[in-house]
Amino acid sequence: MKEPLHLFKIGGAVLENYEELEEALGFFGNLPGRKVLVHGGGRRASQMSRQLGIEPKMYEGRRITDSASLEVVVMVYAGLENKKVVSMLQALNCNAIGLSGADGNVLLAEKRPVKEVDYGYVGDVKKVNTQSLHTLLEAGLTPALCAITHDGQGQLLNTNADTIAAELAIALTEQYQVNLYYCFEKPGVMTDIDDADSVIRYLDPELYAAYREQGIIAEGMIPKLDNAFRALKAGVASIHVGGRKALALGKATQLMWTTDFPE
Amino acid sequence: MKEPLHLFKIGGAVLENYEELEEALGFFGNLPGRKVLVHGGGRRASQMSRQLGIEPKMYEGRRITDSASLEVVVMVYAGLENKKVVSMLQALNCNAIGLSGADGNVLLAEKRPVKEVDYGYVGDVKKVNTQSLHTLLEAGLTPALCAITHDGQGQLLNTNADTIAAELAIALTEQYQVNLYYCFEKPGVMTDIDDADSVIRYLDPELYAAYREQGIIAEGMIPKLDNAFRALKAGVASIHVGGRKALALGKATQLMWTTDFPE
Repeated sequence: MKEPLHLFKIGGAVLENYEELEEALGFFGNLPGRKVLVHGGGRRASQMSRQLGIEPKMYEGRRITDSASLEVVVMVYAGLENKKVVSMLQALNCNAIGLSGADGNVLLAEKRPVKEVDYGYVGDVKKVNTQSLHTLLEAGLTPALCAITHDGQGQLLNTNADTIAAELAIALTEQYQVNLYYCFEKPGVMTDIDDADSVIRYLDPELYAAYREQGIIAEGMIPKLDNAFRALKAGVASIHVGGRKALALGKATQLMWTTDFPE
Repeated sequence: MKEPLHLFKIGGAVLENYEELEEALGFFGNLPGRKVLVHGGGRRASQMSRQLGIEPKMYEGRRITDSASLEVVVMVYAGLENKKVVSMLQALNCNAIGLSGADGNVLLAEKRPVKEVDYGYVGDVKKVNTQSLHTLLEAGLTPALCAITHDGQGQLLNTNADTIAAELAIALTEQYQVNLYYCFEKPGVMTDIDDADSVIRYLDPELYAAYREQGIIAEGMIPKLDNAFRALKAGVASIHVGGRKALALGKATQLMWTTDFPE
């Protein structure tokens, strides 16, 4: 049997709330065995961008990354947010090592081709270097990845953190039994965004399609769940989506590949 | 005999000139065997600081690091500069991994006590975690360190890059025969800053003291050379100070511990 590995993705809203972040990292730090963290940081990047007089440009929730915006996201994700997370994990006795995709050539990407939209310096993941990650994990280190990749030719690229988490999870299934957690500011995937009790406990592709059709699951949740179901289909052992407390209590949304009775 | 290791420190002015940086990294990337890079970034940090409306405060060439300035140096050193260097090294087929002192707990520091001057979030190195570095080196990775440390309690700190290079060099002498290079914008330590032919080829403590007394070696060179001589005294095998070309040609300044005839 493969060794279990916990892959934990923390969203931007959690990153910006010190207490929330501390609790999420505390939960993560206490997970047993091998683990990997992935974090976003888009909120802070947009803030920093405005402070520098660069108005953030988005298209369907995705950042248009010109060269000035790329500098901002590299600074904020790989600098400010990554080192904050790493130093907090170190204080929790979790021997974290912060990485962008360029470090150890962990995430090789290619610049997204220009079609209707020119996303600029946005990268689509081409290859996950599981050997580098395995080496770090075997040395007792906990990789903490930010959402910056590179093309191997010296160009850094901006990649969605949810996508990175899914790609990592899929690639790591070769060696590990991967459990993937998407930790964000809501308790889980909800039928009513204003009702904390409306968390969908189990979600399979059939239910997901139905909720989408009814407009109950919409907007930002769709790319997140598309990524997550893709990972589940590719062999990721378990996927949970929700807030730190709900995840700890096992009350977040669990994705199911079939409608089989949950274990 | 211990395995040789090349420890290469790149200063801020080299970092800000793309061609210079590319050539310096090309030289570094081609050095055989184990190697470690350390880089500064103060010039860019001061620039970014002003762009954000924070006037940089310096005392005798050292940055007074309040919490806003700390955010700037973390962003610029660990984000912008570190990832630029790492992605450029990757393009040169050098498998670099960017690190702050918090990553892998590589550099533990303590906040400098307030005496006449309150330097703010400035850290003095307390411990170099050579085990983490050794693991990375053995895995064929090339650590690229920026000048950010941490206190192990979740606080990031700003530490002078020349000092980090010296501390790393000293700690690594336990396992390696360390060759230390300080690569900066001048060909070497010069008797006349405007005359490229005035490089002091060999410098020992006695000559150094004489040049200081005469005011020939002054200002920023003094803390750099103090650090370097400290490292030489502590067992670092060789130390060269100078520009990329001069280093490559063996025409930079070599520090000597005694006035013995150079080999």
